[in-house]
Amino acid sequence: MKSVNVGICGLGTVGSGTVNVLVRNAEILSARTGCDIRITQIGARRPNPSCDTSEISVVNDIFEVASNPDVDILVELIGGYDTALKLVKEAISNGKHIVTANKALIAEHGNEIFALAREMNIVVAYEAGVAGGIPAIKSLREGLVANRINWLAGIINGTGNFILTEMKDKGSPFADVLKQAQDLGYAEADPTFDVEGIDAAHKLTILASNAFGIPLMFDKTFTEGISKVTPEDLQYAEEFGYRIKHLGIARNTDKGVELRVHPTLIPESHLLASVDGVMNSVLIDGDAVGQTMYYGAGAGSEPTASAVVADIADIARIISAPECAVPPVSLLSAGQDVSVLPIGEIVAASYLRIRAEDHPGVLMKVTEVLGQHGINIDALLQKEARESDGCADIAVLTHHIRENLLMQAVSEIEELEEITSPVVHIRVDHLGG
Amino acid sequence: MKSVNVGICGLGTVGSGTVNVLVRNAEILSARTGCDIRITQIGARRPNPSCDTSEISVVNDIFEVASNPDVDILVELIGGYDTALKLVKEAISNGKHIVTANKALIAEHGNEIFALAREMNIVVAYEAGVAGGIPAIKSLREGLVANRINWLAGIINGTGNFILTEMKDKGSPFADVLKQAQDLGYAEADPTFDVEGIDAAHKLTILASNAFGIPLMFDKTFTEGISKVTPEDLQYAEEFGYRIKHLGIARNTDKGVELRVHPTLIPESHLLASVDGVMNSVLIDGDAVGQTMYYGAGAGSEPTASAVVADIADIARIISAPECAVPPVSLLSAGQDVSVLPIGEIVAASYLRIRAEDHPGVLMKVTEVLGQHGINIDALLQKEARESDGCADIAVLTHHIRENLLMQAVSEIEELEEITSPVVHIRVDHLGG
Repeated sequence: MKSVNVGICGLGTVGSGTVNVLVRNAEILSARTGCDIRITQIGARRPNPSCDTSEISVVNDIFEVASNPDVDILVELIGGYDTALKLVKEAISNGKHIVTANKALIAEHGNEIFALAREMNIVVAYEAGVAGGIPAIKSLREGLVANRINWLAGIINGTGNFILTEMKDKGSPFADVLKQAQDLGYAEADPTFDVEGIDAAHKLTILASNAFGIPLMFDKTFTEGISKVTPEDLQYAEEFGYRIKHLGIARNTDKGVELRVHPTLIPESHLLASVDGVMNSVLIDGDAVGQTMYYGAGAGSEPTASAVVADIADIARIISAPECAVPPVSLLSAGQDVSVLPIGEIVAASYLRIRAEDHPGVLMKVTEVLGQHGINIDALLQKEARESDGCADIAVLTHHIRENLLMQAVSEIEELEEITSPVVHIRVDHLGG
Repeated sequence: MKSVNVGICGLGTVGSGTVNVLVRNAEILSARTGCDIRITQIGARRPNPSCDTSEISVVNDIFEVASNPDVDILVELIGGYDTALKLVKEAISNGKHIVTANKALIAEHGNEIFALAREMNIVVAYEAGVAGGIPAIKSLREGLVANRINWLAGIINGTGNFILTEMKDKGSPFADVLKQAQDLGYAEADPTFDVEGIDAAHKLTILASNAFGIPLMFDKTFTEGISKVTPEDLQYAEEFGYRIKHLGIARNTDKGVELRVHPTLIPESHLLASVDGVMNSVLIDGDAVGQTMYYGAGAGSEPTASAVVADIADIARIISAPECAVPPVSLLSAGQDVSVLPIGEIVAASYLRIRAEDHPGVLMKVTEVLGQHGINIDALLQKEARESDGCADIAVLTHHIRENLLMQAVSEIEELEEITSPVVHIRVDHLGG
């Protein structure tokens, strides 16, 4: 049986999970792949008590792994940008295939990495970077290869989804639930990447690139976090028959590609609305297959390791025949400029929450402004005035409208004397329904 | 660019969908696979107006396709057993790779077909046979390759799921909804395969084989249909907090493998409980990844074609390097007898509906019998007597119990003089929750 030699750089949560899965399921893996997959070397600054590395060569310097002639596949699990990029480029130059769970690295430096990999005829695999253990990238690239992808939408940040789920279930404000998520270890001390949507935008960039055959365009992805969502918004959305989820949405339109991460109202009857807590899910609409959905754990030691090892197994199968590798991204747009729609050009339905002093006539003024901009109202809730400040909430669901027009109407509404705080705007998506 | 030549046998619903997808998305497919995938020949008794075959050689005799030296991949879409088996074996003998959507053929003759394919170093792919356009087989074999699969459960027959969904939503009896499904074209004139679970058992056999690395064992799969489920059962289940779904369940236990298709109560909060209408979904529990779920259209022309073409694309990629093909099934159990648990050895919670004359004391007699067999009651509903026959329903949820014991208790209950009709027994599964 052919041996395939793996070098693992980084022995944190995912690194130790990867060692554990490769060791525990070695027999299954060799039956399924026809290869004996061995861990040849680990590069890590310190051991990790949650995995046994006593029989593996462990070195401090990760760059030793990148130059080890016995390593066929380098698994990059150190995270971050600079050192990871240097490590991966060096390993590729040394002819090693790459498996990584680092979405930030791929989303922001993938174009450069893939170009080098093509030159060297090297496989770069990154299933673990998107939606953890869910084989979303494989499903998109291979399972749905026959399809022109129309759009995709994903709950691709478990921390954010946990926070929104808890806020809805318990009626607690954002800051309290964030604190709880930090105590549970679901959110980092600095939660910006998760709650402001940067992590989701990294993943969306990668999904969109595979879906549409376009280069990775993280810097053109519109990104809006969940910190502005309040328990009232979650409740009003429910009264309208919706749930609020933090979605990454990529859509292929005639005018250009939409790439956006933002809180979104989706119909409560949609399967994606039932994806709660730290779970992830990706919904893909293809021209032949229609909608398919993929669901599972988006993070965690062994769920992520499951994807890392799947990539290792794929490469192990093709190491003897590199010409049959699936390319990192099949660029359908090679040589063309890809146009990404600015967020103002998006046409979407919207939820607006307008907090106003409880004077007669406010509602009329608001609807007048909307009408002047050609914005039709789908549903409207006027809540009773709150005792605390005498203000009342008006929640509006609009028909589809170009976002620039909506934004103009929103500024005019904010200028009305009865309006006491900024208008909250959350997009609505029926997800093809 | 390398050309890969496809011969398609059968031009019905899936055949015409396959032609349409291959032609419409030819450019995408060649960018993604690096191959020019061409339809060289079609074998079909008559043309199909829903696809344009004017520029393709169409022959009446499907066996011409199997012996056509210009065909690399034979796509079997004629369905049925005998002719399909002969066609596939002849094509394999002639060195052609096989793509099929025929679950009955694979479930019942797959062991023989795979053995011949191994001998000839041929790929046999059958993604379209299970759960239509959902890449369930690929996810299981490749995406979750790192996992020891603990169990899987699937809604894998759209007709049955449509019937149960309509029965629940409208309160209509089975026969009426079946008629409606037939009128809509969702059910065949002879609905036995769908409603008695044979189709689901075919698919479960294939899933289990891939999950556990065991031979295809259709004849050992316990199969129970949905014709006995009544609107009352769906309603009582809802009162208990459950939904009834027709599931295929495969589980790897210390004592043997469970292979079973039957109506099942699952918690209403589980994502699988929200899979309604003709949609399919497969839930897989792996030791590393935990639960992942796959959802989409389980039938239809282009959804099924999406899976057929994905298999074609996979083979196209590896035609120049056949040694890297994923084997049809990686037999972990090669050379060992695989023990399949008889249904009586299964340990499960159960729902019982007992229709009794409305005499005082019946409830006590029933609970006494259950108690004598060590069966604990989790919840119990006693409904009021019905005007039509003066009988009252007692609905019971039991704790987990070995099914043989439950069956003994059920026969004793059925012998009570107040019991007027057979006890309805439906298994409960919390799906790992």
